Amino acid sequence: MLKRYLLSPGPTMVPERALLRMAAPMMHHRTPEFSAIFAETKMMLEQLYQTESDALMLSCSGSGAMEAAMINLCASGDTIIYVNAGKFGERWGDIAAKHGIHAIEVKTAWGEAIAVEDVAKSLSENPHAKAVFVQASETSTTTEQPIQAIAALTKDLENCVTVVDAITALGVIDMPMDTWGLDVVISGSQKALMLPPGLATIAISEKAWAAIEKNPSRKTFYFDLLTERKNQKKGKDTTAWTPAASLIIGLNEVLKMMHEEGFEAMYARHKILAASIRAGVTALGMRLVSKAPATSATGAFIPESIDGGAFVNYLRQSMGVTFAGGQDDLTGKIVRIAHLGYYDAFDMVTAMSALEMGLNRFGYPVKMGTGVAAAQEVLVARFPRHQ
Amino acid sequence: MLKRYLLSPGPTMVPERALLRMAAPMMHHRTPEFSAIFAETKMMLEQLYQTESDALMLSCSGSGAMEAAMINLCASGDTIIYVNAGKFGERWGDIAAKHGIHAIEVKTAWGEAIAVEDVAKSLSENPHAKAVFVQASETSTTTEQPIQAIAALTKDLENCVTVVDAITALGVIDMPMDTWGLDVVISGSQKALMLPPGLATIAISEKAWAAIEKNPSRKTFYFDLLTERKNQKKGKDTTAWTPAASLIIGLNEVLKMMHEEGFEAMYARHKILAASIRAGVTALGMRLVSKAPATSATGAFIPESIDGGAFVNYLRQSMGVTFAGGQDDLTGKIVRIAHLGYYDAFDMVTAMSALEMGLNRFGYPVKMGTGVAAAQEVLVARFPRHQ
Repeated sequence: MLKRYLLSPGPTMVPERALLRMAAPMMHHRTPEFSAIFAETKMMLEQLYQTESDALMLSCSGSGAMEAAMINLCASGDTIIYVNAGKFGERWGDIAAKHGIHAIEVKTAWGEAIAVEDVAKSLSENPHAKAVFVQASETSTTTEQPIQAIAALTKDLENCVTVVDAITALGVIDMPMDTWGLDVVISGSQKALMLPPGLATIAISEKAWAAIEKNPSRKTFYFDLLTERKNQKKGKDTTAWTPAASLIIGLNEVLKMMHEEGFEAMYARHKILAASIRAGVTALGMRLVSKAPATSATGAFIPESIDGGAFVNYLRQSMGVTFAGGQDDLTGKIVRIAHLGYYDAFDMVTAMSALEMGLNRFGYPVKMGTGVAAAQEVLVARFPRHQ
Repeated sequence: MLKRYLLSPGPTMVPERALLRMAAPMMHHRTPEFSAIFAETKMMLEQLYQTESDALMLSCSGSGAMEAAMINLCASGDTIIYVNAGKFGERWGDIAAKHGIHAIEVKTAWGEAIAVEDVAKSLSENPHAKAVFVQASETSTTTEQPIQAIAALTKDLENCVTVVDAITALGVIDMPMDTWGLDVVISGSQKALMLPPGLATIAISEKAWAAIEKNPSRKTFYFDLLTERKNQKKGKDTTAWTPAASLIIGLNEVLKMMHEEGFEAMYARHKILAASIRAGVTALGMRLVSKAPATSATGAFIPESIDGGAFVNYLRQSMGVTFAGGQDDLTGKIVRIAHLGYYDAFDMVTAMSALEMGLNRFGYPVKMGTGVAAAQEVLVARFPRHQ
């Protein structure tokens, strides 16, 4: 027996409550019974998004929702601005290229947050830009991006919106959509929503809806957000196309768990878990990948003498602990440890312990317990002092 | 307690084995462990399709795969032909309209199979048509379409392929893709594949791949089939975007069940179940909706004195039995009883019994057991004579 622990930034662990609820016999999705679940789920989802506008569910991965956002807002020939701070930032450019959309890149080095003034400059140079696309949390580099400041740049522009990929941010950090003026906010089921992959969520402000309605193109059938809005609206409580029903039922369960914990407590928990891993890896002498570390996952450089790919594979295969490695330029150089979703203090202890024992097994000198102890110094705040 | 029975033509009952397997703790989709499952699933899926070419998995509903087929094969301005024999046939036209594709409709009355000569005539009038789109089983009218004969029309045309929506046909009827010359064959998880919705499958012939490669447009990121093919090919065994992993794991389980039963036995079972319901409803004096009844589901007209919508709702809410009603022009007039997927003799007995007792509760004169008995006369062939 090798007991398994999933500590990658998506998919993440699925709570037993959600697994069991999704394992219930299938329910027809065109019934009042399912619609009641759908309506409740949508309402709770909009509370999580902190929006008075719509949050929709789409049966696809987060990448599908990213494309849906762009092709509903923009037509071929339109100009957009996108922040490229890593692998997922790049993707905006790839999607735009497929649709003949003129994409202006605002780039930064991997591991850095974008300079807001660079986005401001690009906006002033491209006054016809229809939207700014950005990641809230760039998972490839485990870096948080200044989405509040970026949204502030477009808030008063009549014809420009901010689109946020919050796939590894929604449910992790407090990002009040309406207050910050985020126009489109995307997430995916297999991150802090604690579900298997296959369902995306997308919340859309009134300003973005107006832009979508004005877009003459919208050459999409499956991803037509106006059709989805009509179907998913309160009272209709259904979807345009057959939905990933078991995942929506799972979403109902995890949103209830989030409401039970309380959003503030949930964000505070994520902050502590993230801080504990940063403290742990730093105590082990490992350098953080990011200069603006994310709350969702922590990337750290592996000692140069060790092949990072082999290390991550060894941990998964021989120790049962699944982390993520690096992508593209960071392949083989880093390890990424997740702390978004169904995780608490002892999962972080497990993560640090696996890192230490793994380094030991690769012949790297580690004083056992160094990283664990540093993490514990942070994690102990999760538990009230006994009176 | 009201025990529930799901007898709608999608979603269908999910086998306990698949429910439990999907309820296992989440596995990372970028691991050799998942890739091994993926590769085995793809191989078994291609056996079900009876193709030497590729069958791909897409994380979307069947409608998403229908759009994927059309936009990969065709560009704006291209001409296609589509068979409109019901609600799902209509959808080809709706998708084409979204993309500026010139769609020639070949229409027939609801409940009828298309006349093959009408398709042949349209092909000769539109020699530049890139593809013929057709349903194998038009679920809105529970009618089978002559896909073998239609495919024969395009088989020798250099630049025209046949695209089949087999969403309620794959796994139900024997439709050897390569032998019949079907070029693109689409299915969805929540039908004879016996899973929750959210995963589509699409098999593509070499001829269709060549057409896709020649299409200069393909304005899609999420549905780019060439990208999916590269990732899903043997040896790579992964997906371009994050897949609906739990549904793929479920698909692995149900395909094993199909292999255990044997494909011939599976098709024979479906034939008997379908024949039993046709015999049962006919014995009750109900008229079949279709003149070429499908093996997947049977539609029958409800006595005119009864409101069909109220009848279907009553059966679901008060008797626990979920059938489907009619769509569009057939709304309130018919009931559709499913027999595709995880069903056997006693499910059909339940269906006929529910129909009889439901009619009785609506004040319609029914001699109890009439439909059940007629169904049993057919169903008894499922059981070997005791020696």
